[in-house]
Amino acid sequence: MPVSRLIVIGGDAAGMSAASQARRLDSRMEIRVFERSPHTSYSACGLPYFAAGMVEEANSLVARTPERFRQQYDIEAMVGHEVLAIDPQARRVRVRVPETGKEFEEGFDTLLIATGARPHWPEIPGCEGKGIYALSTLQSGIELRRALDERPPRNAVIVGGGYIGLEMAEALLARGIPTSLVQRGVQPMNTLDPDMGALVARELKRRGVNLYLEEPAVAFELEGGRVCAVRTSLRRLPADLVVLGLGVIPESALAKEAGIELGVKGAIRVDEGMRTNLPGIFAAGDCVSSLHRVSGQEVHVALGTLANRQGMVAGQNIAGQKARFPGTLGTAITKVCELEIARTGLQERELEALGIDYAAVTIKSRTRSGYYPGVSDIHVKLLGEKGSGRLLGGQILGGAGAGKRIDTLAACLWAKLAVEELVQMDLSYAPPFSPVWDPVATAARALVKKL
Amino acid sequence: MPVSRLIVIGGDAAGMSAASQARRLDSRMEIRVFERSPHTSYSACGLPYFAAGMVEEANSLVARTPERFRQQYDIEAMVGHEVLAIDPQARRVRVRVPETGKEFEEGFDTLLIATGARPHWPEIPGCEGKGIYALSTLQSGIELRRALDERPPRNAVIVGGGYIGLEMAEALLARGIPTSLVQRGVQPMNTLDPDMGALVARELKRRGVNLYLEEPAVAFELEGGRVCAVRTSLRRLPADLVVLGLGVIPESALAKEAGIELGVKGAIRVDEGMRTNLPGIFAAGDCVSSLHRVSGQEVHVALGTLANRQGMVAGQNIAGQKARFPGTLGTAITKVCELEIARTGLQERELEALGIDYAAVTIKSRTRSGYYPGVSDIHVKLLGEKGSGRLLGGQILGGAGAGKRIDTLAACLWAKLAVEELVQMDLSYAPPFSPVWDPVATAARALVKKL
Repeated sequence: MPVSRLIVIGGDAAGMSAASQARRLDSRMEIRVFERSPHTSYSACGLPYFAAGMVEEANSLVARTPERFRQQYDIEAMVGHEVLAIDPQARRVRVRVPETGKEFEEGFDTLLIATGARPHWPEIPGCEGKGIYALSTLQSGIELRRALDERPPRNAVIVGGGYIGLEMAEALLARGIPTSLVQRGVQPMNTLDPDMGALVARELKRRGVNLYLEEPAVAFELEGGRVCAVRTSLRRLPADLVVLGLGVIPESALAKEAGIELGVKGAIRVDEGMRTNLPGIFAAGDCVSSLHRVSGQEVHVALGTLANRQGMVAGQNIAGQKARFPGTLGTAITKVCELEIARTGLQERELEALGIDYAAVTIKSRTRSGYYPGVSDIHVKLLGEKGSGRLLGGQILGGAGAGKRIDTLAACLWAKLAVEELVQMDLSYAPPFSPVWDPVATAARALVKKL
Repeated sequence: MPVSRLIVIGGDAAGMSAASQARRLDSRMEIRVFERSPHTSYSACGLPYFAAGMVEEANSLVARTPERFRQQYDIEAMVGHEVLAIDPQARRVRVRVPETGKEFEEGFDTLLIATGARPHWPEIPGCEGKGIYALSTLQSGIELRRALDERPPRNAVIVGGGYIGLEMAEALLARGIPTSLVQRGVQPMNTLDPDMGALVARELKRRGVNLYLEEPAVAFELEGGRVCAVRTSLRRLPADLVVLGLGVIPESALAKEAGIELGVKGAIRVDEGMRTNLPGIFAAGDCVSSLHRVSGQEVHVALGTLANRQGMVAGQNIAGQKARFPGTLGTAITKVCELEIARTGLQERELEALGIDYAAVTIKSRTRSGYYPGVSDIHVKLLGEKGSGRLLGGQILGGAGAGKRIDTLAACLWAKLAVEELVQMDLSYAPPFSPVWDPVATAARALVKKL
């Protein structure tokens, strides 16, 4: 039997998970990865903490280097290599090495597209200026860190109040930099409902972030090519550093040009085996769409957890197994200063759009027994379907120990449990960890009455 | 319709939950609670932290006082009242007030027995000595705290390495008292498997506890009626304070004398509505047995979470609703110094006794991303059924944030999920909270291969 060749485009979470998994299951396959940046398998989610200086070395964010892939996995991970085009009929990719200008072609039997997503960069006046950063690649993190170390900004402005925006707010505050956050929406964190987002806004203000809501950035003012201010719809904010946190866009141009079917938000559409519509071509990670397990709809959720899982499934199928990626709940967690923030499932906006008849409750409880040192507030919001009683989603805000409770809700959503089950469920209790009714069960008790 | 009268025996978690629930649903019912001790609704689980001095006031442990029950709930909570006998035919209880010696009878339409459990007191020479404490009632906690404050012991010995034993070890260490722990078994925490228990033993030793395993206490040496040493099977340990942590025994004598059926370990047997075999007589809390949801067997698990839930169900049914208590997973959590300890479901010993064909894995991972400050080790043990692939139980040990992950496993057990589902489940990730594969998912990945 001839040795088959796998080409992987993109050497981060999804690509390298797939490559490693394929290697574990098939020792003979030739595996070659082309990665545009100089790095493989780094933690994009760690970039804000590296920028903050909480993580000293950029290398700490790298799980495995190209050398390690070569030596330990017999995987050729070629960094600084950009794929320009896919030819699905001829089963070739065209590759360019920007450093040398060299171009070449390379054949494949199986292809995995793991091109990820790029930050949304607003096309407003001044957007080409220096001093404007978006945290996406390790390289962009290194550049931002260097800027912060070498010329500490007098004023920083964050544009967009999502995960990256919040995490960068914490990072900049930790460095003592006066920080503003501007955003189009009524609240930060639009993956939370507005009432929960309002609590995040309160925390940001309490920690000293100047928060400007319903004020989209409309222009960047430049001075000698460098940003010096952000103009919103209402005001001018001096800024010698800008960080963009406007979300991401799937990198699907290569796939589209090759005739691969795209889905929601321009993400590559795959089946549950991570197969595109073209034979022998797989895709995984931030560039693909997924099934939402609660709504049954196609969604684009760019998260490292999904990229890893999808990569694993793709790798198993590439090696001839029968694996499936069963979809997402949109579970996510972050923190800003002392406030832990987590969510899973559907939120009110989505339920309304889907026409689902739902009820919602938000309760306030404590992370520990009220008398135990270090206790803090926790807010739990739960959404459930009227009639069926099914749990639809949950959001949690609170002090240390609050956020990871989202996994209990994720497990309930995964198993399609009714809210009533969460009331009865045998959750753990001891004074250092919880009130005797865990806050998620307290919220469930309140919700059951409304379903 | 005549007003019906509910009598509750025992004014802690189960009894007062039931009484409050019944009152919420029925504003006319007469509700009277007889409680032997001077206190209602206190957190027995908080006693070690009160003894340690971490919680300043005994009153902080009291959720609701008799006055509050009277004023807010119209519930007559009579403390210092001991029920001596139940006459199920005449529908009367006989009550004694130890302080005055007064005795009287009181009629009921419905009765709830919530007599709790008492600490196991070993019948060995010297067991009647002063200076030997068992933490069960708030009164016993107040006495122990007073002893520690007023005559700090030179040496303390804990007998028994369960939850109370471990929590008291932490409490005594926090007070700088040289502390030994002796126990019959090969490891502390017999609700964990021996390999996990060994890690607890290591932590105890590391923190400075003198640990004597497989050395049951055989006698207490007294001097002028006060304890001065503990004799084990192998040695003599000087001790001017002894704390017993040998588990609890259901307080079911009253029920038994009244002809109520008992089950495993002498606990009162109830149906899923918390009804005993006698009409109109309910029981709930540490005095009853429960259904184990994984094994399907009758078990006695004395935990505050169950007492509260059972009390709620009993109260609902007493008020004419149709509620059911669906059983327990034996989920529990504690900590000793920096080590969080949690468990749910069945352990190896139980699986062997049941003849279930199972596989087990233990993995070591991290509580956070490896590069994130404050990361610590976490050990996750999972047990699954061969063939069916069903999750059977889990045990977790680790630093801050490790323990509450047990609730994710509890939710999976509750929903009877296969271990495979836990691999795919969309759990939350961000560097301050977890590696990209949460440790419980990592353990599931390892276990799937063995099922």
